[in-house]
Amino acid sequence: MSDERDVQQVLARYVRATDCRNSAAMSALFARDGWVEICYHQAGILMPIAVARGAQAIGQAADDVMRAPPTRGWTHHTTHDPIIEVMSDSATIDVQFIVFESRSDLIPATGWSHGASGTQGTVRPVDAGYYRAVLRRFDGVWKIASLRIIHDLPVALPARSIA
Amino acid sequence: MSDERDVQQVLARYVRATDCRNSAAMSALFARDGWVEICYHQAGILMPIAVARGAQAIGQAADDVMRAPPTRGWTHHTTHDPIIEVMSDSATIDVQFIVFESRSDLIPATGWSHGASGTQGTVRPVDAGYYRAVLRRFDGVWKIASLRIIHDLPVALPARSIA
Amino acid sequence: MSDERDVQQVLARYVRATDCRNSAAMSALFARDGWVEICYHQAGILMPIAVARGAQAIGQAADDVMRAPPTRGWTHHTTHDPIIEVMSDSATIDVQFIVFESRSDLIPATGWSHGASGTQGTVRPVDAGYYRAVLRRFDGVWKIASLRIIHDLPVALPARSIA
Repeated sequence: MSDERDVQQVLARYVRATDCRNSAAMSALFARDGWVEICYHQAGILMPIAVARGAQAIGQAADDVMRAPPTRGWTHHTTHDPIIEVMSDSATIDVQFIVFESRSDLIPATGWSHGASGTQGTVRPVDAGYYRAVLRRFDGVWKIASLRIIHDLPVALPARSIA
Repeated sequence: MSDERDVQQVLARYVRATDCRNSAAMSALFARDGWVEICYHQAGILMPIAVARGAQAIGQAADDVMRAPPTRGWTHHTTHDPIIEVMSDSATIDVQFIVFESRSDLIPATGWSHGASGTQGTVRPVDAGYYRAVLRRFDGVWKIASLRIIHDLPVALPARSIA
Repeated sequence: MSDERDVQQVLARYVRATDCRNSAAMSALFARDGWVEICYHQAGILMPIAVARGAQAIGQAADDVMRAPPTRGWTHHTTHDPIIEVMSDSATIDVQFIVFESRSDLIPATGWSHGASGTQGTVRPVDAGYYRAVLRRFDGVWKIASLRIIHDLPVALPARSIA
């Protein structure tokens, strides 16, 4: 597998860990001293919102900030149009992200009505922006050294927040 | 071309065949004894909805289950964040999917109104989930051996359904 | 880096240039005699809407046709499921595209209300279709020789338009 695909798959596993709310899987993707910074991109200026430092703290912070999955639903953090540069054991990746929330309709006890067809529920985009990450290769395994999450939209963090 | 990209392009052709309602193109992507299983992911439990077995039956089933394209519109089955593993002549791919429906506004006989600008119509996401596939290489060509379509949302199938 | 990834990254830079309204960055991605054709895909027939010829004119045209970014917002032109064929110094790429617009809520002077949580604003898909491009390699650098933008939806162009 090419280095570029390896790097891209680290990010693919990052969004899986996010959507599964799997702290342990998320921590495992980061370098021991890795960090995540959450920013809001207001009219060309990056406003920092929160930072988490250290692989373990990042997994824990994810638990704290991420909203619970919607009732009868799921989230999908999707990434697009990666620009990847690999230089020996270091790499950068820049992707767009869009987050979707899906919510199932309640399945009626008597089954779907006569005219019902296709999926029953709603899917809507709720977030967008860019992930910009630096990765480093340790013993042949790519880990995220830093991840800047740049939101198009301002973020209201819950009181129990990361710092 | 790398094996991983080859595998990814089989899935890219799968979504094209789906969006074009092209049964023959879809059948051609599957191993002769391939199968497709449609599931609904309800709160952590995969509930099977339907299965189609055999490349030809899969193309036919697609014809039967897929709703007609929306009036003056199209569907886009899009996939994201592939995780691909290739082992010799066998491979797995796991992607997120989001389905969009676009519908054109009617072009007024007198042309667009003075203030109209940009695209005229609507685009909305209608479905989401995961595709998980196993591929096998036959004489140098990757074919889908099995495809599990995992819907976030429950699915009401039409009476003329696959079994 | 593989030729296929190189080609894909040209398109990744194209959508970045589009979303940044960066005419110079966009011109730089095209062959000197490159062209862009905008079409509307009406019920199986491609109706040409506009053409721009020459790398410089394409950058300028982009300035003219692209709507300003939404107030307190951004656009994301995202691409999906690339089918790429490379033949020596020539390549084709076919991708689906979905365009999203995000708009921030105004941050209240007194801060978010007690119950606010997560991103504050809206994200919605506004456009969809296919990009089909031919690229040529000049002195080791892939450039877009032609790009056909196939819209699912009809497009009302502003009076100051490309021809």
